[in-house]
Amino acid sequence: MNRKFVFYMCGQMLIIEAVLMILPLLTSIVYKESCAWAFLLTGGIELFLGALAMLFLKPKDTVIYSREGFVITALTWVLLSAGGALPFVFSGEIPSFADAFFETVSGFTTTGASILTDLESMSRGLMMWRSFTHWVGGMGILVMVMAVMPMTTDRSIHIMRAEMPGPIVGKLVPRVRQTAKILYIIYIALTLLQIVLLLLGGMPLYDSMIHAFGTAGTGGFGIKSDSIASYSPYLQWVITIFMFIFGINFNLYYLALIRRFKSVFSSEELWTYIAIVLISVFAVTVNIMPLYSSVSESVRMSAFQVMSIMSTTGYATADFDLWPQFSRTVLLLLMFVGACAGSTAGGMKVSRVIILFKSARRELKKMLHPRSVSAVRFEGKSLESSTLSGIGVYLSFYIAIILGVLLLISFEPFDFETKFSSVIACFNNVGPGLGAVGPSGSYAGYTAFSKIILSVSMLLGRLEIYPIIFLLSPSVWKKKS
Amino acid sequence: MNRKFVFYMCGQMLIIEAVLMILPLLTSIVYKESCAWAFLLTGGIELFLGALAMLFLKPKDTVIYSREGFVITALTWVLLSAGGALPFVFSGEIPSFADAFFETVSGFTTTGASILTDLESMSRGLMMWRSFTHWVGGMGILVMVMAVMPMTTDRSIHIMRAEMPGPIVGKLVPRVRQTAKILYIIYIALTLLQIVLLLLGGMPLYDSMIHAFGTAGTGGFGIKSDSIASYSPYLQWVITIFMFIFGINFNLYYLALIRRFKSVFSSEELWTYIAIVLISVFAVTVNIMPLYSSVSESVRMSAFQVMSIMSTTGYATADFDLWPQFSRTVLLLLMFVGACAGSTAGGMKVSRVIILFKSARRELKKMLHPRSVSAVRFEGKSLESSTLSGIGVYLSFYIAIILGVLLLISFEPFDFETKFSSVIACFNNVGPGLGAVGPSGSYAGYTAFSKIILSVSMLLGRLEIYPIIFLLSPSVWKKKS
Repeated sequence: MNRKFVFYMCGQMLIIEAVLMILPLLTSIVYKESCAWAFLLTGGIELFLGALAMLFLKPKDTVIYSREGFVITALTWVLLSAGGALPFVFSGEIPSFADAFFETVSGFTTTGASILTDLESMSRGLMMWRSFTHWVGGMGILVMVMAVMPMTTDRSIHIMRAEMPGPIVGKLVPRVRQTAKILYIIYIALTLLQIVLLLLGGMPLYDSMIHAFGTAGTGGFGIKSDSIASYSPYLQWVITIFMFIFGINFNLYYLALIRRFKSVFSSEELWTYIAIVLISVFAVTVNIMPLYSSVSESVRMSAFQVMSIMSTTGYATADFDLWPQFSRTVLLLLMFVGACAGSTAGGMKVSRVIILFKSARRELKKMLHPRSVSAVRFEGKSLESSTLSGIGVYLSFYIAIILGVLLLISFEPFDFETKFSSVIACFNNVGPGLGAVGPSGSYAGYTAFSKIILSVSMLLGRLEIYPIIFLLSPSVWKKKS
Repeated sequence: MNRKFVFYMCGQMLIIEAVLMILPLLTSIVYKESCAWAFLLTGGIELFLGALAMLFLKPKDTVIYSREGFVITALTWVLLSAGGALPFVFSGEIPSFADAFFETVSGFTTTGASILTDLESMSRGLMMWRSFTHWVGGMGILVMVMAVMPMTTDRSIHIMRAEMPGPIVGKLVPRVRQTAKILYIIYIALTLLQIVLLLLGGMPLYDSMIHAFGTAGTGGFGIKSDSIASYSPYLQWVITIFMFIFGINFNLYYLALIRRFKSVFSSEELWTYIAIVLISVFAVTVNIMPLYSSVSESVRMSAFQVMSIMSTTGYATADFDLWPQFSRTVLLLLMFVGACAGSTAGGMKVSRVIILFKSARRELKKMLHPRSVSAVRFEGKSLESSTLSGIGVYLSFYIAIILGVLLLISFEPFDFETKFSSVIACFNNVGPGLGAVGPSGSYAGYTAFSKIILSVSMLLGRLEIYPIIFLLSPSVWKKKS
């Protein structure tokens, strides 16, 4: 492994994070808050450490392979989460480091699970940072770096592959750097559009930025203890629609931009995603109808909650923990599915579910006609058998991690529903679960140990398992393989 | 599909069930119980219908393929469960057919989940029948038929494959009928040995038979409301050891009989099974130590409950629902694993877990060295890629069924832990779950609808999913494929 290059990249990332803190710093200056010092102090430490690494660890050898890609990605995410936690600690607003780390991991991984119990007492600068981590983590920290920094290696596809979600990662254009730029331009444009639409609905600028960041990253951090419930129906619908938009594969927006509409409309994943959304909204609407005064209110409540859970955002306009068990179970199932690959959302991803479903159909056919040979086709291409077995293995890891984390936090004094949904909500980067961690609850009651375990499972979910496993396996760190 | 042959076989199966009822009939005659009439009536109906089918549906064409194998298996299990439920209904001791069907499916599939709340008021004949279904279902109803009846087809491997659990089904000897006979002889010998050992410990003959049937089938139906708790430590240890024995692949006993000890001791599945048992017993013992007065009592409690859950038997000597959450979670994980393939136990099977684990390791290796080619080896042979992708697909079905059943019973007014563990305990053929369906509870509180849904999931678990899916797909039933 090219260790020097790995640490050099990490130094670069610290500097990037210091730069990113300019936005919350400005916010705290505008609102004349004392937490400005916490950002300055953190930024200073990061610039110093980053400069040291970049000066003394400049690698001669810039060739990297997939192992470096995985390790750089995993290490960057852990490091920036630790660094991003410092302003909370320095300002004294979240005194425990375990709490601040949980909150920052939850931000970067766009989970949106929170240990805060009184949102409205927090300073605006810190809340802006908290929501901004969603936006940065949504499209990927390293993808951003690739877009803006002159890369020192032409093998950055290994890094991109490790950070981008979904079973198949491709480049839009031959150069990775160009691809990263295109993705970020689309991302910024959509975020700005949402801010404008929220402003038009009468939401203040600060609130609009917070909620656009939370939606774009499909994160779900808000600033009110009732999440989105107190905003107008217009604003709720804007957020619902943008949760849907940010759950779509970003490649499709690029294809639409270059006018390849036929490719967009032939996307199996898109149509399946739309079908699941419509069916779920319909089923939940019918089920919750008796709780609300009008059909339009039921539809709005159902659509918001379904989109929030399926895009793994986690905003709420209703405490779905009080809904009938059928709707709660539908939402729990949607947490597993998640939205499209190549979006900012978490979960298994619709494309994986489609491929599993098709493999299952083929398997049944093969049992009846053992000699028949038929390929599994997805998005017009037949899949290689290695992609298929890879998805099977991914599924096993997925289940093993859920059961393992459940075992590790089993000593906590909550009921089974709370613990089970905590694991699912963190690992799938959804945020709120059911019971004590439901939309009106928080993760504050967990011990520091469980908070760290749940933080790791958020990272496992966001980076799709493998980078974290490689980071923790000593054999990967050996000098020569 | 050769429909005539399918119905002819079903007729034959009805006659077999009528014959099997001789044992409970004799029991009720010995104890002078009125339920003898229920057995005579049921047997009469079954003999009549069976004779009709065998007379009028004698097939000219006895060639069958895998589709007929799957459908015969699924249909037989549904039919015999419906027939086996009749004595409970006719005697009036379980008046509702849904309840009686649930109880009988639970018996044949060796689940051991019960809707009975007052075991001690039931007649002995019916209790004997209830436990006898475990014994018959454990090794397989059709495997029994193959062993004793002159088969009308030489393609019975298709039937055997559909009924025997595990990812790879082989014949011990070239002829299927011989294989079936060998398996049943081992099964009968081990059951008799257990009855003798229980008698030596002072257990009455009736109790010994009931509990040996329950252990051999890894079913778990008992006759006391506290299950095995009131029997002596010696009897508890005998049952513990036999739950372990009946969780081992029966092929290994055959190999031991023909003195191929080397093959036995090189079985990866056996060693992994032993390792999981020892580690779990140790972990649970340490965890529950404070609850019991002596180390030996904790070990006995831990070993009994671990073996009972892992072999998916479901007997209890302690209400593990009152144990610390860590032990409860360990037991929940063991429900998923189950015991060895080719045993009478349910669950995923240890061999599938091993193969998934090995595929995962290979996948990780392939990510670091994309060009490396390495096969997954199990029990000394490298597995075909179709076996591997087959296990991945099996896992997807497994999860989809758990989530689907959970959704279907989500309207029930129980807490999440009860419902979740009901689904796991029924689908994995364990029996008792946690919460309201824990060792001291019962499934009586579910609605008839949920009882049928849970019955289907027991059949899905016992027959390893595919036969039931084929039974329900119209395309399989078409005359010509």
